[in-house]
Amino acid sequence: MKYEFLKLVDILGITAFSISGVFAAMEKRLDVFGVFVIAFIASIGGGTLRDLLLGDTPVPWLLNLTYITIVVISATLAVLFKSILKNFNKTLLVFDSLGLGFFTVLGIQKGISYGLHPVICVGLGTITACFGGVARDITLGQIPLIFRKEIYASACLIGGTIYLLFYYLNFLNGFSDLICISIIFIIRILAVRFDLRLPSIYKY
Amino acid sequence: MKYEFLKLVDILGITAFSISGVFAAMEKRLDVFGVFVIAFIASIGGGTLRDLLLGDTPVPWLLNLTYITIVVISATLAVLFKSILKNFNKTLLVFDSLGLGFFTVLGIQKGISYGLHPVICVGLGTITACFGGVARDITLGQIPLIFRKEIYASACLIGGTIYLLFYYLNFLNGFSDLICISIIFIIRILAVRFDLRLPSIYKY
Amino acid sequence: MKYEFLKLVDILGITAFSISGVFAAMEKRLDVFGVFVIAFIASIGGGTLRDLLLGDTPVPWLLNLTYITIVVISATLAVLFKSILKNFNKTLLVFDSLGLGFFTVLGIQKGISYGLHPVICVGLGTITACFGGVARDITLGQIPLIFRKEIYASACLIGGTIYLLFYYLNFLNGFSDLICISIIFIIRILAVRFDLRLPSIYKY
Repeated sequence: MKYEFLKLVDILGITAFSISGVFAAMEKRLDVFGVFVIAFIASIGGGTLRDLLLGDTPVPWLLNLTYITIVVISATLAVLFKSILKNFNKTLLVFDSLGLGFFTVLGIQKGISYGLHPVICVGLGTITACFGGVARDITLGQIPLIFRKEIYASACLIGGTIYLLFYYLNFLNGFSDLICISIIFIIRILAVRFDLRLPSIYKY
Repeated sequence: MKYEFLKLVDILGITAFSISGVFAAMEKRLDVFGVFVIAFIASIGGGTLRDLLLGDTPVPWLLNLTYITIVVISATLAVLFKSILKNFNKTLLVFDSLGLGFFTVLGIQKGISYGLHPVICVGLGTITACFGGVARDITLGQIPLIFRKEIYASACLIGGTIYLLFYYLNFLNGFSDLICISIIFIIRILAVRFDLRLPSIYKY
Repeated sequence: MKYEFLKLVDILGITAFSISGVFAAMEKRLDVFGVFVIAFIASIGGGTLRDLLLGDTPVPWLLNLTYITIVVISATLAVLFKSILKNFNKTLLVFDSLGLGFFTVLGIQKGISYGLHPVICVGLGTITACFGGVARDITLGQIPLIFRKEIYASACLIGGTIYLLFYYLNFLNGFSDLICISIIFIIRILAVRFDLRLPSIYKY
């Protein structure tokens, strides 16, 4: 039951990041191939960096077709229905934020399974959730969005830290996963809704 | 005999990518060191990413001097004879396209030796052939060329798919290697000759 | 005794690269989170690429908190005292150049411990010392500084080559480490002091 739930969120997360990649790539007017590559990079970039840093290779998307299939289907749908999806920004945000939460938890869990320090685990979860977007933006030649405009990684750090508290309180289970995902989801939604930003550190 | 042939194409391929890196770097007016680094990145970027994703480390160019030697020699010649080579765009295109074909086949063969799914193997071949150019362009601060202007990765995908058919038909040998390399070579040459591009997906 | 000395230079090196990252990120007006990420990338980028290429994973900064702690403290101090530090450009240059020398030696030593060819070891040392700055600049959307303006990697290559001579002369010890670090340090300081640059290779 829990596995199916996570599997569903995983698919939604990959789908959401893939769609975000499609829209970012279309904004830069890449060709069809470029759009799919950017969708793929946005979806699997975070998990790939995590696995390379851990030395967990070959990386999962080389070992089965699940990832590629999901990316191709979701990117194709995004391209076909782009005029409709443009009006579904809220739906996209929901998927994207769910994915953010899920990938954070997934990264933390992987760090724990490697016996890493909890603080490192939170960092690893944040890398897993955020690096896809960073790689997407670097490939598109722009300064990664998450460093500039919105509360994004901060949501992962806060949600991940709460996960860490559960870990120290010996209270890790499916319920704590859900709480962590929900917190990241809600922070991200509220940040976009109320245009919250991290303070800039410049006096001028 | 076949080994010597492939070795020759390999050297030509590295040479061609190295020269393409030199010209891309000179266009951006990098200093001498920068030019050599970009030549190196363009030549070994694809194979390096492939090997990192597979976990086949240390990467080959750390283990012997072949790669570095070829890059230094070809980049030096490109710098010295740049005024002549500018008139040899067709020669460059020939080497570059041969390299593209060869690296695709090399990547696919490596994927097969790891027991990966054929579709993944084609993707791995394409990454091997194309990522050097992507890394070159990202380092130079521009959106990778292959996403924008020309048929490049598509040639690898088509040639690689035909390789895949040979694989399913149990017909993999030196001859199929040659056919695959030739197809990629010809598609790439024709694409440049007739300025073929992938369709853009924008209505405006 | 030697270990404590190297440990101190290591901490100074990470600190210096971290501070250089903070200033580079503030120039681009990133938010607080972005500034810390760039500081982290600048500090650990070189060693991370080296370890990924060698297959020495999980990378060290996943296995203990030393790196993250140093980066957080030094970046925080840099942000808090940025108005003061702006007048300490020379102090920064000293730390940065020490770090450059130390990371070069560290990379070479790691290459030797893997039994790599001495020429490769020098390259590995240069990658270790320089890639953090390259990753910092790419993430910030600019062509890496080291390819353009200043003698930087060249200092590593020269110092590393002298280290290589010691290696062939069977004369590797703490003293040769110090000489190599000093040479890199002095070349870098002189290059900045007298605005030395590599020759450009363009006639126009």
